[in-house]
Amino acid sequence: MRRIEILDSTLRDGAQGEGISFSVRDKLAIAEVLAGLGVDFIEAGNPGSNPKDAAFFKEARSLGLGKSRLAAFGATRRAGIKAAEDSALHRLLEADTEHVVVFGKASLLHVERILKVEPEENLDMIAGTVAYLASEGRKVIYDAEHWFDGEALDRAYALATLEAAAGAGASCLVLCDTNGGSLPERVAASVAALARAFSLPLGIHAHNDGGLGVANSLAAVEAGAAQVQGTLLGFGERCGNANLATITPNLCLKLGLDCLSEGALLRLAGAARAVAETANVGFDEAQPFVGRKAFAHKAGMHADAVAKLPASFEHVPPEAVGNERRFLASEVGGRAVIMDRVRRLDPTATKDSPLVAAVLSRLKDLEASGYQYEGAEASLDLLVRKAAGRYRAFFELGHYRTIGEQPALDRGRCAQATVLVFVDGERELQAAEGDGPVHALDLALRRSLERFYPSLAGMRLTDYKVRVLDRGTATAARVRVLIESTDKDGSWTTVGVSGDIIEASWIALVDSIEYKLIKDLPGREAPAESERRAVWA
Amino acid sequence: MRRIEILDSTLRDGAQGEGISFSVRDKLAIAEVLAGLGVDFIEAGNPGSNPKDAAFFKEARSLGLGKSRLAAFGATRRAGIKAAEDSALHRLLEADTEHVVVFGKASLLHVERILKVEPEENLDMIAGTVAYLASEGRKVIYDAEHWFDGEALDRAYALATLEAAAGAGASCLVLCDTNGGSLPERVAASVAALARAFSLPLGIHAHNDGGLGVANSLAAVEAGAAQVQGTLLGFGERCGNANLATITPNLCLKLGLDCLSEGALLRLAGAARAVAETANVGFDEAQPFVGRKAFAHKAGMHADAVAKLPASFEHVPPEAVGNERRFLASEVGGRAVIMDRVRRLDPTATKDSPLVAAVLSRLKDLEASGYQYEGAEASLDLLVRKAAGRYRAFFELGHYRTIGEQPALDRGRCAQATVLVFVDGERELQAAEGDGPVHALDLALRRSLERFYPSLAGMRLTDYKVRVLDRGTATAARVRVLIESTDKDGSWTTVGVSGDIIEASWIALVDSIEYKLIKDLPGREAPAESERRAVWA
Repeated sequence: MRRIEILDSTLRDGAQGEGISFSVRDKLAIAEVLAGLGVDFIEAGNPGSNPKDAAFFKEARSLGLGKSRLAAFGATRRAGIKAAEDSALHRLLEADTEHVVVFGKASLLHVERILKVEPEENLDMIAGTVAYLASEGRKVIYDAEHWFDGEALDRAYALATLEAAAGAGASCLVLCDTNGGSLPERVAASVAALARAFSLPLGIHAHNDGGLGVANSLAAVEAGAAQVQGTLLGFGERCGNANLATITPNLCLKLGLDCLSEGALLRLAGAARAVAETANVGFDEAQPFVGRKAFAHKAGMHADAVAKLPASFEHVPPEAVGNERRFLASEVGGRAVIMDRVRRLDPTATKDSPLVAAVLSRLKDLEASGYQYEGAEASLDLLVRKAAGRYRAFFELGHYRTIGEQPALDRGRCAQATVLVFVDGERELQAAEGDGPVHALDLALRRSLERFYPSLAGMRLTDYKVRVLDRGTATAARVRVLIESTDKDGSWTTVGVSGDIIEASWIALVDSIEYKLIKDLPGREAPAESERRAVWA
Repeated sequence: MRRIEILDSTLRDGAQGEGISFSVRDKLAIAEVLAGLGVDFIEAGNPGSNPKDAAFFKEARSLGLGKSRLAAFGATRRAGIKAAEDSALHRLLEADTEHVVVFGKASLLHVERILKVEPEENLDMIAGTVAYLASEGRKVIYDAEHWFDGEALDRAYALATLEAAAGAGASCLVLCDTNGGSLPERVAASVAALARAFSLPLGIHAHNDGGLGVANSLAAVEAGAAQVQGTLLGFGERCGNANLATITPNLCLKLGLDCLSEGALLRLAGAARAVAETANVGFDEAQPFVGRKAFAHKAGMHADAVAKLPASFEHVPPEAVGNERRFLASEVGGRAVIMDRVRRLDPTATKDSPLVAAVLSRLKDLEASGYQYEGAEASLDLLVRKAAGRYRAFFELGHYRTIGEQPALDRGRCAQATVLVFVDGERELQAAEGDGPVHALDLALRRSLERFYPSLAGMRLTDYKVRVLDRGTATAARVRVLIESTDKDGSWTTVGVSGDIIEASWIALVDSIEYKLIKDLPGREAPAESERRAVWA
């Protein structure tokens, strides 16, 4: 099977993305995730221009990265000096990687207007740099910056830059769509022509400015490219680099090519999420293959069809990329969704079980009052547990009170909350202040429970969403609050609805905590068979 | 120039997206934005399966949509009855649109395993439905669901379904990549073959499950398709529909084709943002063409090059799609909008007026802290007035306090507020209770001011929206509150931002009341020329 090399540049080009800022520790953690997938190259920084990157390469030597190889990245030598005298190239060598990636200018426009050197000098810079690095024992991946724009402007000159790199001993010629605006047909034609002209392997480095980063990468591979450069989540400047979490499943599952290590695709969704966590950026849940929405079915007809035959509305099986199928519970979602949830608690349940009827009827009431369980599976699980009698409250609310104030009390924050709870008969009153009443309430509630349930310390709320339900009644409108929580094992979402935003938040907070405790204390929540009865919150 | 028809399905297929839930009012607002771009068809709902959609079509008749035409969407008739007897088709007709979109099954797998009818009956369902709708005077756009998968499975049968639709009088045959997993080469080959076989215009309806929704749409157009279906922001089930805000600039600027109305691209970024605001979903700032990051250049080599020569790192000029170039984090949005607002106060103002510079600088600070004035023009007007020194406060806040409580106080509602204001030196303290702290605060504030400003009795708050700004900090996240207010003359929207939802609401409430009073008491707010000075809230 034809094998495609993958170079991940999350730690180099990805770090150029707005809002991305990696510490050395972040970079080490991400390198390990990428190595776990078996990417061929981890392009991890530009030691010539960034001292933090130099520190990373020193520390990274002790990582066990399996067959993945680190690559340091840098520019061709400065104009007017010898490559051997360029201190940036010395630092590139000091990174001590077997492979280095060097970029040079392929476009005459950039040579003349931006670099402002003679066309011949640019060719010398490319050849001299590649030759010097090769003479120091490095394998040199050559990135032809602005290849496609340069080729369109002056093909003969653009070709001369590639020939300079090839003649000086580059191991691979990578065609960069630096501005990200090329179309797949152009990319395919260009790669096909070069594949005939050069015996060296070709690579593709695409950006997503036209929304075509994935398509351009696939087009290049189909035309003969042997290496794909990108970033696992599409991080990168402007609209980002080509997204490898989208490209690699397409290469393997659609084009039948070999890339990454064996079985790596099965872990892809988890790896993608781990990188987003470390980068501390939101995860695009609608992204292909690895997003939580990628195999979520909402419309009644679609959900029913998928329940009959998954391939009817799924282009690949979700398990193939480490993802899951989800049925979204909504008024149009139908029984299939509920059945899926009920069966997790009771594998013997059928469509006609009284439990299913009870859940559906309760769901209908709640939906009529503004609840919506799509994207709030944790609350749905609790609902099913309550219907099945497999639920016992972890605590009881005595009373809560929030106070918001402007101007704030002397030296205080603008909100305070007190919470009184009872756990197995013991009472606990706690207070907290926060940036708003919900924040203060959240803090006071956790504070009151942590003594009884220490594992709550390992849970964080990671997203909070408010949706106003009935427009037209303005500040008295009902609101739906969605809260996403995370612990070391994963994340879950809960929902609360009320005319009072604080009460709606409280409901979602309580569900979130109960879901966490059921997960952590299996058995604790389930009353004995004889005690089971349906409970409605 | 070859013209490509655009059908936007934000209101139909987009509504299937997880987390999307449109009210009839939302749908009317979005239809107007789409009409402002000049999309050819606004596919706005499925009246046969959803009574809310039927209500929309009734109300939509009074909208002025220019040359854009509404289209109702529905399935082919049910099996075993005549088309003329199918109540869903009656409701489709009742939507009273010149054009209807009807989908039928192109894949034998779906016919046999999901629909469970004989292959012949499916052909009859398609032909009978199209013929019936045509006989009722409709132009029928026929969507061939699962076209590409069906063609791969059994091409002869798939072709027979298209022939059934064409023979019965369809006006356009649309090839759907319903599962979103097709590759551009397959799409191009299929469209090219059909373009030779059929004289009817062809359309493409792509989904993004392989990250190729845009590429597949462009491939189809290059192979001869005359209509592109998608959703403006890529809303839709799973990974979404093909994103029209990415496709249309590619069609016009890259392929040199004609679509949308003249000059529409220049307003594309604003229109995209308006749709996201109405849908109350986050805007993907990294998305091609219209995202805020799409033309953002981090400091350094790229930013320097762009300053020398924009084309060096930009594939299209940002102005061409109504977007802006940004260096570092500088956030100045909508200069044209600002000029327009400033000129309402001072018709002699030019781009170089100190007033314009002052407003832009203030705006930059506010945008950095999370404000956004698109859709909150009343607050923008107040900001400009303050910069121009044409503002005097109508009241001063002494103090407010809100209390939220659960269980509620004896016989009380769950929230109370007290507000102390000063008007021209007089103090007024009022209290109110409400369904939540913001509601109570709103009531107490009005109660405290009505004695001084009786016209406030004629104003109602008609919408209240909350958007959480920074994910990852959950209940301590900053929120943006938008409040829409109405009186007998019209409606206006104001905005407030804070880490505290109550304070954010307060800011927007105060702006709303001040805007109303400036309108009702002209001259009262404007200090004498000699007193004018810039005031910042």
